[in-house]
Amino acid sequence: MTTYTAPIKDMQFLLQDVLKVTEAGIPGYEDLDRAFTAAVLEEAGKVASEVLAPLNSVGDRDGCVLENGVVRTPEGFKAAFAAMKDGGWTALDCDPAYGGQGLPYVLNSAVGEIFVSANMAFNMYQGLTHGAYSAIHAHGTDDQKATYLPKMVTCDWTGTMNLTEPHCGTDLGLLRTKAEPQADGSYKITGQKIFISAGDHDLAENIIHLVLAKAPGGGEGTKGISLFIVPKFLVNADGTLGARNAVSVGKIEDKMGIHGNATCVLNYDGATGFLLGELHKGMRAMFTMMNEARLGVGLQGYAVAEAAYQNAVAYAKDRLQGRDVTGVKNPTGPADPLIVHPDIRRNLMDQKSFVEGARALTFWGATLIDRVHRSGDAAADGLVGLLTPVIKGFQTDKGFDMAVQAQQVYGGHGYIEEWGMSQFVRDARIAMIYEGANGVQALDLVGRKLASDGGKHVMAFFELVKAECRAHDGDDRMKPFTEALKTASKQLQQAGLFFMQNGMKSPNAALAGSYDFMHLMGHVCLGLMWTRMAKAAFTALDAGSEDPAFHETKIATGRYYMARQLPACAMHLARIESGADPVMALPDAAF
Amino acid sequence: MTTYTAPIKDMQFLLQDVLKVTEAGIPGYEDLDRAFTAAVLEEAGKVASEVLAPLNSVGDRDGCVLENGVVRTPEGFKAAFAAMKDGGWTALDCDPAYGGQGLPYVLNSAVGEIFVSANMAFNMYQGLTHGAYSAIHAHGTDDQKATYLPKMVTCDWTGTMNLTEPHCGTDLGLLRTKAEPQADGSYKITGQKIFISAGDHDLAENIIHLVLAKAPGGGEGTKGISLFIVPKFLVNADGTLGARNAVSVGKIEDKMGIHGNATCVLNYDGATGFLLGELHKGMRAMFTMMNEARLGVGLQGYAVAEAAYQNAVAYAKDRLQGRDVTGVKNPTGPADPLIVHPDIRRNLMDQKSFVEGARALTFWGATLIDRVHRSGDAAADGLVGLLTPVIKGFQTDKGFDMAVQAQQVYGGHGYIEEWGMSQFVRDARIAMIYEGANGVQALDLVGRKLASDGGKHVMAFFELVKAECRAHDGDDRMKPFTEALKTASKQLQQAGLFFMQNGMKSPNAALAGSYDFMHLMGHVCLGLMWTRMAKAAFTALDAGSEDPAFHETKIATGRYYMARQLPACAMHLARIESGADPVMALPDAAF
Repeated sequence: MTTYTAPIKDMQFLLQDVLKVTEAGIPGYEDLDRAFTAAVLEEAGKVASEVLAPLNSVGDRDGCVLENGVVRTPEGFKAAFAAMKDGGWTALDCDPAYGGQGLPYVLNSAVGEIFVSANMAFNMYQGLTHGAYSAIHAHGTDDQKATYLPKMVTCDWTGTMNLTEPHCGTDLGLLRTKAEPQADGSYKITGQKIFISAGDHDLAENIIHLVLAKAPGGGEGTKGISLFIVPKFLVNADGTLGARNAVSVGKIEDKMGIHGNATCVLNYDGATGFLLGELHKGMRAMFTMMNEARLGVGLQGYAVAEAAYQNAVAYAKDRLQGRDVTGVKNPTGPADPLIVHPDIRRNLMDQKSFVEGARALTFWGATLIDRVHRSGDAAADGLVGLLTPVIKGFQTDKGFDMAVQAQQVYGGHGYIEEWGMSQFVRDARIAMIYEGANGVQALDLVGRKLASDGGKHVMAFFELVKAECRAHDGDDRMKPFTEALKTASKQLQQAGLFFMQNGMKSPNAALAGSYDFMHLMGHVCLGLMWTRMAKAAFTALDAGSEDPAFHETKIATGRYYMARQLPACAMHLARIESGADPVMALPDAAF
Repeated sequence: MTTYTAPIKDMQFLLQDVLKVTEAGIPGYEDLDRAFTAAVLEEAGKVASEVLAPLNSVGDRDGCVLENGVVRTPEGFKAAFAAMKDGGWTALDCDPAYGGQGLPYVLNSAVGEIFVSANMAFNMYQGLTHGAYSAIHAHGTDDQKATYLPKMVTCDWTGTMNLTEPHCGTDLGLLRTKAEPQADGSYKITGQKIFISAGDHDLAENIIHLVLAKAPGGGEGTKGISLFIVPKFLVNADGTLGARNAVSVGKIEDKMGIHGNATCVLNYDGATGFLLGELHKGMRAMFTMMNEARLGVGLQGYAVAEAAYQNAVAYAKDRLQGRDVTGVKNPTGPADPLIVHPDIRRNLMDQKSFVEGARALTFWGATLIDRVHRSGDAAADGLVGLLTPVIKGFQTDKGFDMAVQAQQVYGGHGYIEEWGMSQFVRDARIAMIYEGANGVQALDLVGRKLASDGGKHVMAFFELVKAECRAHDGDDRMKPFTEALKTASKQLQQAGLFFMQNGMKSPNAALAGSYDFMHLMGHVCLGLMWTRMAKAAFTALDAGSEDPAFHETKIATGRYYMARQLPACAMHLARIESGADPVMALPDAAF
């Protein structure tokens, strides 16, 4: 059995000392003082440790069951979901006009991390609802908003996103689900959707499916796609539930992980749907909230790694095996704890320095999203658009790797389901795939985001890194950070230059290096975060920190990241500069 | 459902053109001509594709069941095991004195790869038997050999290895299982052993457990440990089965993967055991066959990756998604196959270049073991001892990573159990843990093997690399190989030098870099293998190859490895040279 404790001190350090939210000048941030964020995070931490974490292994073991067309969630999920609703946790950053609390997205992200760490599969029921809420909020008519949003804010009704079909996932232009216009302005939706997370369950009275489908007259490919609201139960004019709609669960998928979430095949047989947003502009509507959704998956990447790390540390301190080669540390015991061994420490430091760096990047990304939504800041919009594929792709890849490393600390016990480490690995694996597989994130980064607005956003990013380094020019203590960051940032620039020079001849020269570029940029981003965190920690120490051990640990952890992880940048650059030839040399038949 | 086809052409290329087995001067190798090895491998390939591979998902889904104290293997395993026995596959490299075929270990390894790729969990029943066979063969009395070996060669009786106990795995000095000497020269064995692969099942009449236990008078720690033969059924003087011994199955572990193999808790309650080898020298007896066993696990690492790769290629050619950015490749279809996309190709090339390189290293290692066993070659013994932790640790880490990448090619379908890619990942994971977790392999490499015999073996390895590069001095076509290999080898030497210079002050300086050293050396080894393979391919082309596409593919695949993977060496060196300080900076309480 695994346990989980919310890392509130780390989160507070980020919000208050690194991001300095109350001074950020973002509307609504002025309320996020130290006491307020502490209160929210502590309360969330309690729910996570006491209600959600104990259900994590239950959900994994029992999974969801389809009986007579109805999905039953694992024992205890209903009560836990009720507790989440009662606590107001589903409404945190939702619009007060529809019953939400109107808090910033950055605080919602911190709380989200806590819930995901405790129970990723469970948290997806409200996570998907939030995505659907955002789509309706952004594109719905006043009537649609009034009908659906209040119920979705409370999670009395949950939501889903229906994109994938058996023959198409990434390439949505191929989709076949049809929408036939009816005389009353509604549509009849017919087709099969697969991999629908939270597709059906017994946690809510109604489920609001958002479905991509092709209505007549839109033309070929993605241009013909529209987005529809298809409720499980139709909603009467007075807001009560009406007839059951013609959508049914084909099956629940048997997956590698996140067993507590029902991933469904949904069959639409002339189901009644209502156009959301403009006709034939469904892709645009669906992608409006893409940055937010992908940031949420990038958050899952490190949130699961955080939970795995906590348990690996506990095991490494508890398990006695072998002796410290530099001298016995536990003379009264039969052996020393695992944590004395340098390679175990290397493993734990990898995890710790990644998780804390990724948390910083994700929180920073969340403040940028707040800046966009609350201040209409175009530069922030461009920057977060650039960072999004990095946050999603890099963090979920590394988060999975770190969960694997945490599992490794347990030796053979890590491979036994009873100990719970296997679940972290199996759960973390999906984040590399859904919401755009990581190869697609790399393609988005290199094929689209780098060059968007004439490369303005990536140039702004490089300027930001330079400014950060310049700001610490006279501070010798910061040199291990700024020197490593400068080198890594130059390598990233050199990679971008290589794409510009060679991508003209063939786009493959850039695309063959896209995955390495995503990782190279991920390291630069985390290097930037560690530089900021180190500075904040030095500042706190200079001011007579009340918790010097905490701040010294931050600096040492950051130095580890700079010394041990940033050297990966040169490797990624070398791969990128080897160009497309090695990658594309073989004819298809040679594989 | 996954499929599998034995890569016989690749294996033949290695055996006949790279390793040139018939000219190797190893007793018994003269029989391994092209026609003979082809016949054996083709026959093994048939069994693998037709009998073992179809059972792979069955074993994963149904697992093993403990009923009334007896373990039942999945449906179909009994018939498949009978087919393996009837085909003589269990006896391939066993001693003819006990009914074996006396073939070289290298051929047994090639056949083993084929069986592991097809069904790793199933193949462990005979794999563990082979380990126990080797221990009895090396350390048993004539009487013990006569009693057990003929039945184990045929797998009428299978074997197990019992090391781990609940509180100790790596640190066997802590073990508590007791052996009390009896008047008749036997021992009463009492204690609990866990993680016993193939610990019980319904595939054989008897199971011969080899058990580490402490007999009186041996002193503390590992010095007091002896090795015992503990048969499930005692064997009468005439070779028939006698009474049931006092060993029982406590439970079958619920594992992340290899569900088809019964991993048991075994309880010994005064079970009758017979000393194997010398009293209080059980560790030595157990570790005699360690190189072989670890090579076998390193083989699992890439063998599972090979199977995953084959399926990923098939999916990438079949699945239509998106269009080639350089021009449509499948104009009559709705989209191009995945394999046109550069990042998919990068992914597949990673897999292909690793698997083929690892196969070469493993086969080479197997010839070294044959050289030791058949020619008593001390230099080969030292070299294979050095290579063993690299083959085990590096290949199982990378094999797992490659299985994950193969799964990624499938997108969402890779996460669904039905498609079988999840199983490859879950099965591959154990190879990083058992037979010495990979951190322990790194410790063995850096803490023991590097310095053994005054560093003679690692110096010999560097000489071997130098000689290989020198041999191609005038050949410009070989430059991409020799240049990259020279650089990587120098980096490995520099890392070794760092350990020598700093390890004197504190062993942690070396141990904190041990894992990176293992990976750095793994890349150098695969670089060496690709250099040899490229040379063999050029030679074949120069001689008017009958299959130029095959040889050109080898060269291109090797160039990919040199260009895209060897740059990891500089990263590992940089991490190593950052020393122990970043790794050891934090007090335990800071984690």
